[in-house]
Amino acid sequence: MTYQVFDTTLRDGAQREGISYSVVDKLAVARLLDEFGVGFIEGGWPGAMPKDTEFFARARTELQLRNAVLVAFGATRKANVDVTRDPQVQALLDAETPVVCVVAKSDIRHVERALRTTGEENLAMVRDTVAHLVANGRRAFVDCEHFFDGFRYDPDYTASVVRTAFEAGAERVVMCDTNGGMLPSMITAAVQDVVARTGVGADRLGIHCQNDTSCAVANTVAAVEAGVKHFQCTANGYGERPGNADLFAVVSNLQLKLGLKVLPDGCLEKATRVSTALAEIANIAPDTHQAYVGAAAFAHKAGLHASAIKVDPLLYNHVDPSVVGNDMRILVTEMAGRASIELKSRELGLDLAGHPDTLTAVTRKVKDLEAGGWSFEAADASFELLVRGELPDADFVRPFALESYRVQVEHREDGSVVSEATVKVRVRGERVIATAEGNGPVNALDEALRVALSKHYPELKSFELADFKVRILEGSHGSNAITRVLVETSDGARDWTTVGVHENVVEASWKALTDALTFGLARTAANAGQGSAA
Amino acid sequence: MTYQVFDTTLRDGAQREGISYSVVDKLAVARLLDEFGVGFIEGGWPGAMPKDTEFFARARTELQLRNAVLVAFGATRKANVDVTRDPQVQALLDAETPVVCVVAKSDIRHVERALRTTGEENLAMVRDTVAHLVANGRRAFVDCEHFFDGFRYDPDYTASVVRTAFEAGAERVVMCDTNGGMLPSMITAAVQDVVARTGVGADRLGIHCQNDTSCAVANTVAAVEAGVKHFQCTANGYGERPGNADLFAVVSNLQLKLGLKVLPDGCLEKATRVSTALAEIANIAPDTHQAYVGAAAFAHKAGLHASAIKVDPLLYNHVDPSVVGNDMRILVTEMAGRASIELKSRELGLDLAGHPDTLTAVTRKVKDLEAGGWSFEAADASFELLVRGELPDADFVRPFALESYRVQVEHREDGSVVSEATVKVRVRGERVIATAEGNGPVNALDEALRVALSKHYPELKSFELADFKVRILEGSHGSNAITRVLVETSDGARDWTTVGVHENVVEASWKALTDALTFGLARTAANAGQGSAA
Repeated sequence: MTYQVFDTTLRDGAQREGISYSVVDKLAVARLLDEFGVGFIEGGWPGAMPKDTEFFARARTELQLRNAVLVAFGATRKANVDVTRDPQVQALLDAETPVVCVVAKSDIRHVERALRTTGEENLAMVRDTVAHLVANGRRAFVDCEHFFDGFRYDPDYTASVVRTAFEAGAERVVMCDTNGGMLPSMITAAVQDVVARTGVGADRLGIHCQNDTSCAVANTVAAVEAGVKHFQCTANGYGERPGNADLFAVVSNLQLKLGLKVLPDGCLEKATRVSTALAEIANIAPDTHQAYVGAAAFAHKAGLHASAIKVDPLLYNHVDPSVVGNDMRILVTEMAGRASIELKSRELGLDLAGHPDTLTAVTRKVKDLEAGGWSFEAADASFELLVRGELPDADFVRPFALESYRVQVEHREDGSVVSEATVKVRVRGERVIATAEGNGPVNALDEALRVALSKHYPELKSFELADFKVRILEGSHGSNAITRVLVETSDGARDWTTVGVHENVVEASWKALTDALTFGLARTAANAGQGSAA
Repeated sequence: MTYQVFDTTLRDGAQREGISYSVVDKLAVARLLDEFGVGFIEGGWPGAMPKDTEFFARARTELQLRNAVLVAFGATRKANVDVTRDPQVQALLDAETPVVCVVAKSDIRHVERALRTTGEENLAMVRDTVAHLVANGRRAFVDCEHFFDGFRYDPDYTASVVRTAFEAGAERVVMCDTNGGMLPSMITAAVQDVVARTGVGADRLGIHCQNDTSCAVANTVAAVEAGVKHFQCTANGYGERPGNADLFAVVSNLQLKLGLKVLPDGCLEKATRVSTALAEIANIAPDTHQAYVGAAAFAHKAGLHASAIKVDPLLYNHVDPSVVGNDMRILVTEMAGRASIELKSRELGLDLAGHPDTLTAVTRKVKDLEAGGWSFEAADASFELLVRGELPDADFVRPFALESYRVQVEHREDGSVVSEATVKVRVRGERVIATAEGNGPVNALDEALRVALSKHYPELKSFELADFKVRILEGSHGSNAITRVLVETSDGARDWTTVGVHENVVEASWKALTDALTFGLARTAANAGQGSAA
C-alpha cells in the first residue's frame, strides 16, 4: 500500500497568525503543492468560510492537478439533526471534491463539555456523516480531534469512534494530536495500543501532529515507523500556535533517512523552491534556518568548517543539498576567515586564489563593515561590488557619483501625505539635478535617481524594486539604533540583493539603492560586451 | 544521579547567522542562563576567540552564579605536539573554569581526511589532553564530533575514542550529532549499541543534537529516555544551519511530559521571560511560534476554539501556560469573531459583555482595519485605544490633535546626513509649533512631538522608545507596498506596543508614535486619578 501525503496548508495552516490568503493565493498554493507531488490538498472549509467556498468553485475550472486530489474539510453533522438537512454537510458535497475530510470529537470530555451532547449521539454523528458522504460517492476521511488525550483518558470511547467511522465506510481515520502535547515515544506506544484495541491495521490510520512540544516532525515520522501510511502536514509547518508538522522536513526524512518512497520521482528536488514560493504567497519571511529548505540549512559559517569543507563537502553535510534543491552557501561573517571569503567569491565567479592581496583587503574590509552592522550574508550583489572594487585589474567604474540629495515628507492639513526627493549627481561628466515624488521617502529617492540617470542609462527601466526589508539593529534603545536595509531588485530575468547600513533609514536605503542600480548596470554592460564579442 | 543541563548558547549557539555578542552581552546571557537554572554554561573558546578570552577573565570577578558552573570549550591538543606545549590547551587552563569541554574527532574519516593524522595519534590526543586537564584539577568533558556517522561507519574506532576518554579521566563523553542527520529511533538504537559495545553506562554519556532533520529536540529527549543524563542545548535553538536543540523545549518536555526533575525548583516558570530576554540580547526577533515560550505558543485564533475556550481552557492547552511563564493570549484576527474580541478585551480589563453594540462596532472596525494591513496581534495598546474609543461612557480624550507635520532628510555635499521635523499640533486648546532634529526622520518626528507636548505633559520625559520594527507588506512589488510599523514604548515600569500602517513609512511611524504617547498619557492620567481617589 502506498503512502498518502496529505497537505493541509490551505486549511489548518491558514490558522497561523498573520496568514490571510485570497482565493487567487489559494489557487497558486494548490498548484505549487501539486507540483511538489502531494497526493491530497485540503483546500478549506466550504460553507463555513466564504473564501473557501469560492476556492472550490473556481478550482473546478481553474486547477488542473497532476498528482493531487482536492479535499473539502468540514465537521460531522450537528447533534440531533438529520444529516441530509445539515447545511454544513451539504456544503461539503457542493464543493464537488473526490475526498471529504470531516473532523469528529474523539475525546469524551470534549463531546460532553464543548459539544454538549452524549457519547452515543457523537457516534451517531460520525456514522451518519460518513455514510452520507460515501453514499454520495465521496472518499471519506475522519480527523479524530484530541485523539491522544481522549485515548489516554478513556481508551474504550476513543476506540469506539475509530471503529464506528470504519464501519460507516471511512477510508482513513486520522489520529490528531490537536493540542500538540505528544513526544515520539508516546506516539509509538499509542499506535501499537490503538491497533491492539481496535483491531484496525496501522496502515489504515493517519497522523496529524501539532508542534507544541517542538516534536511535530519527529512525531509524524514515529507514526510512520509504527506503520501509519497517511500523514497530514503543512508547508513550512505553518499552523496555529507553534504550527504543524512541516511537510518538507517530514517528506525529506522519510525519503532520505528511512528510504521510503512517498513522492513521485523528481519532486523532492523542488522542495526548496516550493517552500520559498509558498512563504512568499503567505507573506511570511522564509525561515532561513528551516531544516532542508532554509537558506542557511547547509550554510557553513565557522572558519574551521569552511577550510575543511574545501577538502570534502560530504563530510560536513548530512545529505547532498541538491537532493532537496538547496545549495551549500558559504556565509561571509566575522567568524569566517580567508577561506570563507575565497569560497564565497568563487561561488560568484571571482577567483581570488591568484590575488592574495585582494583577498586580504576584502577580508579586512568585510570584518570592519560587519563590526559596524553591515551584513553580506544575504546581499551577494553588494559583496560582489566590494570584491570587484578591490581587484587590481578592475575595469569596473561606478556609473554615477552623488553630490547631495534632499527628501521631504509632509502630512498636510487636509490629511494628505506627500513625499518628494531631489538628487544631485554626476553622470559621465555631466551634473544632473532631478526631482520626483513617491509614495514614501525611499520611493521618491528611487524615482528621482532614475530620472537623473535615465538619459545615460535607459536600461534602468527594466529594473524593478522587488522587495525592501528594513531591520533595526541594537533595538534595546530606539535612539541609538542602526538601520539595515536590504533591497532586492529584478530585471525580469534575474534578482539581486544589496545592503545599506546607517543610523538614518533614508541614508541606509540610499546606499542599498545605489548598489542595486550599480550592480544591475555593471551586469548589463558586461552582458552587452559579451554579446558583441561573440 | 542527577541530570546535567549543559547550555552552549554562548559557544555553539553563537555560530548562528546574524549573532555577534559583545563581552557585555555574554555576561548578561550567562546571568540569565544561571537564573533559568542550567548546571553548565559553556562560555566560548578562550585563546581562539579574543572576545571569549576576555569573557572568562571578566567572569571571574563580574559573574556570581548560583546554579551553574562555567565551562571553557576547546579542542584536543594538536597532532604530534606535546600537550604541555600546546598554547590552545594552555588557554583552556588559563580560563580558570572548573570544567573544560574539549572536542575530539570520533569519525575515522574526519581523523584521516580533515585532521590528516592517524587513528592512533587521535586517540593519543584525546588521552593526553584529558589527562592533562584532570591533572590540573579540571573536570573534563569530551565532545565527540560526528559521533553517529563515525559510529555507523566504523563502530570499533568510535568506541575506542569513548573508552580512551574515560580511561584518561573524562567525567562525560558527549555523542554529538554534528551534521544533525539523526532521527529519534536512530538515537535510541545507537545509544543501546554504544552501551553494549563500550561497556560504558548510558548515564555517563551526553548528547548534543543539531536540528538538520527538524528533530533536535526529539533526538535529545530520545537520548534521555535511553538513559543519557547529560544534554547540551542552546537557548531558542540558536546555532549553525537549522540550529541546535532548543533548551526551553527540551527542559519543558523532560519536566512536564516525562516528569523528570532537571531544573531547580521555581526555574521553569522563568522560561518565557528568559527566552525573550536572550533573543533581545542576540538581536533576533523572538520566534512567536516557538514551542512553550513563543508569544503564540498558547494563542488561539480560530473563532471555533475561542468560543469553546471560554468554557474550559484546559481542554485546549497541552499544559498550563503559566508553568513556563507564558500566557493564553487570544489573537484578534479576521478569523476571530465576537468571542475572541470579547475575551481579548477582558484580558485588557475592559468588559464588553454588557456592551453588545460596542462589541459589534469594535469587531467590524478590526475586520476593516485588518483588511487594510493593520494587525493588532502584537499591538495591545493600539487595540485598547480602539476599544476605549468605542465605549459609550468614554471619559477618554486624545491628548492632542495633529494639524500637519513636515520631515526632511538631507545628504549634504560634505557627506553629512541630517534630519529635521516640524510638527503643528493642538494641545488643550493651544496651537503649538515645534521643530527638532533627529538621527533619522522618525526620530526627528518623535523629538519634535515631544517638544510640542512637553509643556502640557511633562510626564512624557519618562517614555522611552524601546523598539521600532518595520515590516513591508505585500512585498512582491516594492512600489505598491504597505508599511506596518510596530513601536514598543517603555516608562521604565511597563512596556506597551502600538501599530501604524500606511504606504509611507514616515506616516505609518507617525501613527504608531502618536498611539504610543496617547496610550502612555492616558495610563498615567488613570493612575494619577486612582491615586487621588484612594
